[in-house]
Amino acid sequence: MPTLDFWLEFASTYSYPAAMRIGTLARSAGVNVRWRPFLLGPIFKSQGWDTSPFNLYPAKGRYMWRDLERICGALKLPFAQPALFPQNSVLAARVALIALAQDWGEDFCRAVYAAEFGAGRNIGEQTTIAVILAGLGQDAGAVLERAQSDATKPLLRAQTEQARTLGIFGAPSFVTADGELFWGNDRLEDALEWALSLSPLAGKGN
Amino acid sequence: MPTLDFWLEFASTYSYPAAMRIGTLARSAGVNVRWRPFLLGPIFKSQGWDTSPFNLYPAKGRYMWRDLERICGALKLPFAQPALFPQNSVLAARVALIALAQDWGEDFCRAVYAAEFGAGRNIGEQTTIAVILAGLGQDAGAVLERAQSDATKPLLRAQTEQARTLGIFGAPSFVTADGELFWGNDRLEDALEWALSLSPLAGKGN
Repeated sequence: MPTLDFWLEFASTYSYPAAMRIGTLARSAGVNVRWRPFLLGPIFKSQGWDTSPFNLYPAKGRYMWRDLERICGALKLPFAQPALFPQNSVLAARVALIALAQDWGEDFCRAVYAAEFGAGRNIGEQTTIAVILAGLGQDAGAVLERAQSDATKPLLRAQTEQARTLGIFGAPSFVTADGELFWGNDRLEDALEWALSLSPLAGKGN
Repeated sequence: MPTLDFWLEFASTYSYPAAMRIGTLARSAGVNVRWRPFLLGPIFKSQGWDTSPFNLYPAKGRYMWRDLERICGALKLPFAQPALFPQNSVLAARVALIALAQDWGEDFCRAVYAAEFGAGRNIGEQTTIAVILAGLGQDAGAVLERAQSDATKPLLRAQTEQARTLGIFGAPSFVTADGELFWGNDRLEDALEWALSLSPLAGKGN
């Protein structure tokens, strides 16, 4: 089955609709998606940014929030602009790495985005993550402890370094098996199509 | 007929496919498009940028060129990355303002983009613009003189100031009659749909 890597950052607004759409779209396309949480912060820092470009450039930020509201409206996704943006996504990403190695990773990722941009909650707070974990039937205390252990931290750093190596500079990003990079929720369909075109079953020369 | 303002910058890469697509799409949607050339330079400068963000942020720039190549491939548009980027678009924009007040404006705009991103020419050079004008059956000398006259310069400055007032921060941008802003070639269809929804003929509550 063709595969597609879905690079997501929990502080990223456009990763929200992408996370909510990708499961259904990939299933119907017959593409196997690997969810790859990473941190944009270190990548932004190396570009000289200490916060989101949506904060650094107010006209761009105003546009983004309106655009996201329109996108959520069209998808019938709940939308609430959080008071704090961008949020600290380190804990959510560490928990996601644990969850994705088990079978509740995608549900956890979707629940984080729904809390943050659907309900306007602060996912940088440990209690928000604990409530999400409990809602998924997980032992919040045990998971949080493991997420913040010395064993988990290097995994997220390595994932972020790999994102940078792939040329990723924003989220969501999608990377096909041949290294083709697609950036943005609005490129998800193109990325799936590219992934499919690499399948041995795809017609040659079409 | 519903209207849509198409804000274009001749130095902008993604304005190229938008300029090539918008005529056919708008005609079949029944939307009247007003082409509004402006300059991004002064807007970028007020954000602290002295060149394109695609040059300031190399990973983003590499991605953009590859993305544009893919988009042109899908649309079967010729594509050639110009040696110089971004190009000086002031003369092209001034000529476009004259042309759009007559009946050869859209042809001129498309020819400029085709020269720049389809053939890799430098539209900042007066000879490039002169060749385009001649190809359109215009008196190149007379048009260039008028474009650089004191009568034309304030028109482009006013247009650019209006773009800023509308919240425009990039190109292409599309603005509907009710002030809704859409940014990017990939939002053209959404913008046309929004423009149509404002028509008295559009179903209420649909």
